[in-house]
Amino acid sequence: MFSDSDHAAMEQALALAARGMFTTTPNPRVGCVLSKNGQIIGQGFTQPAGQDHAEIQALKDAQTRGIDPAGATAYVTLEPCSHFGRTPPCCDALVRAGIARVVAAMEDPNPSVSGRGLQRLRDAGIDVRCGLLEKEARDLNIGFVSRMTRGLPWVRVKVAASMDGGTALHDGTSQWITGQAARDDGHAWRARACAIMTGIGTVRDDNPQMTVRAIPTPRQPQRVLVDSRLEVPLDARILTPDSGDFAKPVLVFCAVDDRERRHALEARGAEVVVLPNPHGKVELRQMIEELGRRGINELHVEAGFKLNGSLIREHCADELLIYLAPKLLGDAQGMFNLPPLPRLQDAATFRWHDVRQIGEDLRLIARRNDA
Amino acid sequence: MFSDSDHAAMEQALALAARGMFTTTPNPRVGCVLSKNGQIIGQGFTQPAGQDHAEIQALKDAQTRGIDPAGATAYVTLEPCSHFGRTPPCCDALVRAGIARVVAAMEDPNPSVSGRGLQRLRDAGIDVRCGLLEKEARDLNIGFVSRMTRGLPWVRVKVAASMDGGTALHDGTSQWITGQAARDDGHAWRARACAIMTGIGTVRDDNPQMTVRAIPTPRQPQRVLVDSRLEVPLDARILTPDSGDFAKPVLVFCAVDDRERRHALEARGAEVVVLPNPHGKVELRQMIEELGRRGINELHVEAGFKLNGSLIREHCADELLIYLAPKLLGDAQGMFNLPPLPRLQDAATFRWHDVRQIGEDLRLIARRNDA
Repeated sequence: MFSDSDHAAMEQALALAARGMFTTTPNPRVGCVLSKNGQIIGQGFTQPAGQDHAEIQALKDAQTRGIDPAGATAYVTLEPCSHFGRTPPCCDALVRAGIARVVAAMEDPNPSVSGRGLQRLRDAGIDVRCGLLEKEARDLNIGFVSRMTRGLPWVRVKVAASMDGGTALHDGTSQWITGQAARDDGHAWRARACAIMTGIGTVRDDNPQMTVRAIPTPRQPQRVLVDSRLEVPLDARILTPDSGDFAKPVLVFCAVDDRERRHALEARGAEVVVLPNPHGKVELRQMIEELGRRGINELHVEAGFKLNGSLIREHCADELLIYLAPKLLGDAQGMFNLPPLPRLQDAATFRWHDVRQIGEDLRLIARRNDA
Repeated sequence: MFSDSDHAAMEQALALAARGMFTTTPNPRVGCVLSKNGQIIGQGFTQPAGQDHAEIQALKDAQTRGIDPAGATAYVTLEPCSHFGRTPPCCDALVRAGIARVVAAMEDPNPSVSGRGLQRLRDAGIDVRCGLLEKEARDLNIGFVSRMTRGLPWVRVKVAASMDGGTALHDGTSQWITGQAARDDGHAWRARACAIMTGIGTVRDDNPQMTVRAIPTPRQPQRVLVDSRLEVPLDARILTPDSGDFAKPVLVFCAVDDRERRHALEARGAEVVVLPNPHGKVELRQMIEELGRRGINELHVEAGFKLNGSLIREHCADELLIYLAPKLLGDAQGMFNLPPLPRLQDAATFRWHDVRQIGEDLRLIARRNDA
């Protein structure tokens, strides 16, 4: 069904899509390659929201090269859109350009539009194929797929631990368990997320900025703080406005409607959302849903033992990103505050998704079996 | 210095050596390949103690094929012996056979004979080279090298844990955290060890046989039990004599000289060694030394939280063999009973040596930095 050259072109489209890793939010990362008579005649990837989609970029690229795309094959990592959003539908542009064949990696995950773009292309007489390198394409947009299909961001919980599962000494010291290479790698995961979340415990222990610094990025992710009793000090580093072009207010989720604290935080540029559960804590599931409504595709969590455990317990964690240092901490703070199990078979189960060495540490990625 | 064909022949010699994985104890695993005019004319590997070494096997193999080894190159994974042990020196046999060139992967690690074999060959006019694939050869005989250079076995501590470092529920339940493939793999590591050690806690919780069952093996490793107060029940499975041809008494290390208990255990076929430290526990360092004196090259430890922690604390663990199941146990028994650290930089440090997926679990091997 797909030839070697189809594979090669789609791989190139995926590589192009990945160039939008830090910029397309809340749109998906999409790449497009136009091929005619065995030659690449145009390529593009999704520009920041409101600007060109990948297909338009690729058509413009062909134009710039002075080549007529009529009769070409378009390789796209996601079904072209058929609706007017902030930009006109890409389907129409492909039809107008006289594209003869479209190969898509996957359908649009949004159930309300899925398949419509491909149908529109077929109706225009274009030869349409779908499903080439679909797994890779889904992985690239795991957060977008999650939000479109479940209404929830893909929640990735990052942990830096010793081999025996320690994440901090009992006094809260955790800087640093892993090495520089692992910490830099962690910033790349921050950068690709739409939002970075932490808890008040981590603010107290480490006073982090929760920004991307170790690698260059064109925009800082939205910062989110879970602070049930609004205890964050007004001079906490996480409240410092970031200097990026896409700066957004820090989002503080709490369980108390304390007008005075709220105003003080708003004066610092934060936005406060009150979302209590019956135990006086933030209702985590609703918080995740709210982030989905706000267009967060991938949520990156860097928190401590307690918030990590609560997220797992409330079934809010889809993926664990574990940096494992070849050290032993012994009696220390663990990864997740979770109660004892009645039986071994009651353990939350994941599957190993990716494992590699980063500097002197290991990076393990596990995904929840039911995610 | 070494050609491609040298490399290929040494790789074959290493593969042959590995065939002695479960049988050469307490001798090293050695392989030998004889090559003449670009043809392999003989190969061999160390037979069980008291029988032929690899070189003799390879010479006999050439003889069986009706080929004269005179003028051949001998590839050996370890320097040929120059002394009479239970068998005559291999050097003499190589010289007598008219071998023209000897390529060895490494020198004999025993400092009192190291280099003598190679010198003897050189003195006989043979072209001798050493150091080809040395790292691989050292790894294959890591226990033998350890015993020859430090007088201590190589101590490998095996742990099966959840991602968050849990090894058992608080009631001691640990069967099973990892899957069948990981458990079978664990038996292969048991099989290659000269001895398998556990503690009284594990005997109480799991009543294990501590034998190799999941894979075929020509001999069972020596079993060792750490039982400070000689509390092992006389009907414990670990005391059941194994049925192999090389059966050895179970070795019980304790800290109390209880004549009655000792006689009862001896009547069950066990050997009791009293080795107390000032705290009424077994003096672990001396125990490891004693095992070295008894010819134990690789010691495989499958114990619980407490004995594991004590071995780490007493600097007796050289390697950690960690099977990591993609599960979370939450509040549970950890890997190693170790006290809190005063500072992060005081953590015992290792390095990652090997990582792979075994069935649904990960297998991580870490080696102590100073080992």
